[in-house]
Amino acid sequence: MSDRIFNFSAGPAVMPEEVLKQCQEDMWSLGKTGIGVMEHSHRGKAFSAVLLQTIADCRALAKIPDDYDILFLTGGASSQFFMIPMNFLGKDQTADYLMTGAWSKKAIGDAKRYGNVHVACSSEDKNCSYIPAEVTWSKSAVYGHFTSNNTIFGTQFKTEPTPPAGVPLICDASSDIFSRPIDVTKYGMIYAGSQKNLGPAGVTLVIIRKDLVERGSKDLPVMLQYRTHAKEDSCYNTPPSFPIYAVGQVFKWLLKNGGLEGIAAKNEAKAGKLYDYLDQSSLFKATAAGDSRSLMNVTFVTGDEKLDEQFIAFTKERKMDGLKGHRSVGGMRASIYNAFPEAGVDALIAAMKEFESQNRK
Amino acid sequence: MSDRIFNFSAGPAVMPEEVLKQCQEDMWSLGKTGIGVMEHSHRGKAFSAVLLQTIADCRALAKIPDDYDILFLTGGASSQFFMIPMNFLGKDQTADYLMTGAWSKKAIGDAKRYGNVHVACSSEDKNCSYIPAEVTWSKSAVYGHFTSNNTIFGTQFKTEPTPPAGVPLICDASSDIFSRPIDVTKYGMIYAGSQKNLGPAGVTLVIIRKDLVERGSKDLPVMLQYRTHAKEDSCYNTPPSFPIYAVGQVFKWLLKNGGLEGIAAKNEAKAGKLYDYLDQSSLFKATAAGDSRSLMNVTFVTGDEKLDEQFIAFTKERKMDGLKGHRSVGGMRASIYNAFPEAGVDALIAAMKEFESQNRK
Repeated sequence: MSDRIFNFSAGPAVMPEEVLKQCQEDMWSLGKTGIGVMEHSHRGKAFSAVLLQTIADCRALAKIPDDYDILFLTGGASSQFFMIPMNFLGKDQTADYLMTGAWSKKAIGDAKRYGNVHVACSSEDKNCSYIPAEVTWSKSAVYGHFTSNNTIFGTQFKTEPTPPAGVPLICDASSDIFSRPIDVTKYGMIYAGSQKNLGPAGVTLVIIRKDLVERGSKDLPVMLQYRTHAKEDSCYNTPPSFPIYAVGQVFKWLLKNGGLEGIAAKNEAKAGKLYDYLDQSSLFKATAAGDSRSLMNVTFVTGDEKLDEQFIAFTKERKMDGLKGHRSVGGMRASIYNAFPEAGVDALIAAMKEFESQNRK
Repeated sequence: MSDRIFNFSAGPAVMPEEVLKQCQEDMWSLGKTGIGVMEHSHRGKAFSAVLLQTIADCRALAKIPDDYDILFLTGGASSQFFMIPMNFLGKDQTADYLMTGAWSKKAIGDAKRYGNVHVACSSEDKNCSYIPAEVTWSKSAVYGHFTSNNTIFGTQFKTEPTPPAGVPLICDASSDIFSRPIDVTKYGMIYAGSQKNLGPAGVTLVIIRKDLVERGSKDLPVMLQYRTHAKEDSCYNTPPSFPIYAVGQVFKWLLKNGGLEGIAAKNEAKAGKLYDYLDQSSLFKATAAGDSRSLMNVTFVTGDEKLDEQFIAFTKERKMDGLKGHRSVGGMRASIYNAFPEAGVDALIAAMKEFESQNRK
């Protein structure tokens, strides 16, 4: 087997090595079934057991109450951008959206097709480098929507915003889901593409309060109603069975390693080290505002594009990959999701030190 | 590694063992990248190469002309049921649907939400056990839609129906795609869920003529417009990268083994043996009409439900699984897709002979 390198990709992203090994084994034969996990009927006993265990583990991991459904859908968070307003936003109604980055913007774009959008706050004035402290909720929104972590801009809500009583809070948590404890009861719905913190690309986790499932429009194709998938345990049609299985393995790995409290401590340690280094560096500078920094995506620059490029090449020689920043921010981005090892953060800091000593300003 | 058994599942279904072994290897590190195939950024060089090669191999395999786009979407064939009329069927327009089974019926159900549906033929009078010889096309349909193989009822079109000139033919080929040579130029669009003949569940292959991509409605969320995915090589959002990769491995396996001509000969041999046995058996009887028999899903009964159950248990003791028929037909169903080995058909026939000798009528 080839040696593995440190993979800072923003998503699809690094997965735990023990999960990869389990996937390799179960791909040939799931347990003693003599049939690989990808080849089992989604309605057969073996895969049903996998699916139900995955749902149970998800519920245990995030302490999700029974009045929430746990669904595995497809089409990424991008499909939730339209499914949410299609289901919940009537044409004379208003939904509140917190505008903190590229994904919020796309979600707003789709919502406007269905009803009124009130932008309750925005950080566009400073290239989305911060999380606004003030949110101006509208008077009678049907829901409030925010993006908990902004992959591109490296910002993250420290805690969820609080809409007026009775307004369901909906969160796109694609890039920080299960990176820390979460009080699910504060939310109407939480959704996340799988490819950052949950496993391989190809499935969308939707945690949704049952009264919202029922509230959704019935005047839609069956596949676009949450109730269809809730009623059939995500098996109305053939679900993406291997991605669901792999996400289930990641849940098991999290449960075995201290759950969300355990992973939160590790994430704080990893990001803490990196920001500490950045804060004392005379060459590298974090781009996100101090109180808005993401523990998942650490964005930084040297302030000199050529030097940024040189540094990225420098890390590639040291078995690191995926550090190039998104074009809207430039510079570097270290995505250090749950499965990213602390040793990789140490290796990055060592490379930064070495590079800095060679390139004193 | 556990021994593998013969997996007759209707989908997700058996995959070629050499493909599984390649998946295991690339899951740890794709080539020498040091990053597993599930963990590569969908916009990075390594995965882009996989995606482009998969598209090129698909084009070579089915001789798909350059005026067709090859897309990898999500949501299964079930999502195409609404995307097709949503894109192409205006509310005063008519689409022709050939009704030959459960999937045609669902496709018709969704189409009715958007415009007029003319049912151009139906085999519902005999529990969908045959493919109608006559099709009554309407005068100015915007498209004609059919299901090439009916997984549940074990029937298959021997060749595509011919709509009036200028009417695009759209085919749900989920359960027989690439099981035989296909003249793509006769179609406006061909789509298929991946989990039967293409690989693991989680991706939908869409082969669509470029003028149809352009003709699709623009008054839709971006994710629901074919042009969005055509413009961005299926990477508008994060695609289901591992399922796409695995489908690509299946394309390579087909190309290496004689392409569609090669697999068609094998499929005819496998199904031929089984139907020959059924035709001379005094215990087992094929349920599909002789001229409509599927080479992919062979449905059969003893005529005695208890005996059917006993036979299914009998096969399980002989390392076979997945032979229970769908509840709408009952009895047995042997799904023998491209990757199903001929040795498994031989084993099934041997079991049928043995069971028949023990249960003479």
